[in-house]
Amino acid sequence: MLSHEDKVRVVESYIDAFANQNPEGVVALFAEDATVEDPIGSPAHRGLEAIRTFYTASMATGAKLKLEGPVRTASDYAAFAFSVTLNYGGEKRVDVIDTFRFNEDGKVIEMRAYFGPANMHGFEG
Amino acid sequence: MLSHEDKVRVVESYIDAFANQNPEGVVALFAEDATVEDPIGSPAHRGLEAIRTFYTASMATGAKLKLEGPVRTASDYAAFAFSVTLNYGGEKRVDVIDTFRFNEDGKVIEMRAYFGPANMHGFEG
Repeated sequence: MLSHEDKVRVVESYIDAFANQNPEGVVALFAEDATVEDPIGSPAHRGLEAIRTFYTASMATGAKLKLEGPVRTASDYAAFAFSVTLNYGGEKRVDVIDTFRFNEDGKVIEMRAYFGPANMHGFEG
Repeated sequence: MLSHEDKVRVVESYIDAFANQNPEGVVALFAEDATVEDPIGSPAHRGLEAIRTFYTASMATGAKLKLEGPVRTASDYAAFAFSVTLNYGGEKRVDVIDTFRFNEDGKVIEMRAYFGPANMHGFEG
């Protein structure tokens, strides 16, 4: 099982990949058969090819992530609160909480993102 | 499905129940067959009787909860970051993220708490 510090490093790599607009930096964190449910309740992106396509499109929006508080870790999981800033047609912000579940190889096997319309600010215009 | 505002009210009721040391205030939020995994990865408390016992013991520690940032909601879910303060043998603090899944009656059917030893501060002494 990954240590707390290892899990925090994965989260930081995830955030850095957005900062650098580097989809491969995110893809490298996931297991081959991983699922990404973003937001939770929507159909999952399944497998590295689908995950690569999804994050390439996400990063194309210029989304930048900022941690809002410490990463919480337990068992095979990490959970972290963050804000996403987007810069098209004015400042936009989304408040999100992600959960990662890790497999025994230390790769993310399941990602779920918690946010909805009420967490999106500046999108009205 | 509950609205964002409804889900936020449930979260606030949960926090208020701790402030008032009122386990029944929490029990009333859960479905009969709900599960509470606190922390995630530990055996679940299953059903209202087990949940009542668990929260009665939790509140006996004097735990007080404070939201750290906005409640995130999506689909049948809410996620929220908070800190827990405990006052025995000095100030203790735990940083936690909880997720709630709601059933069609608006009751919490699944609660999962994300925190581990690295999120616990002041417990060393």
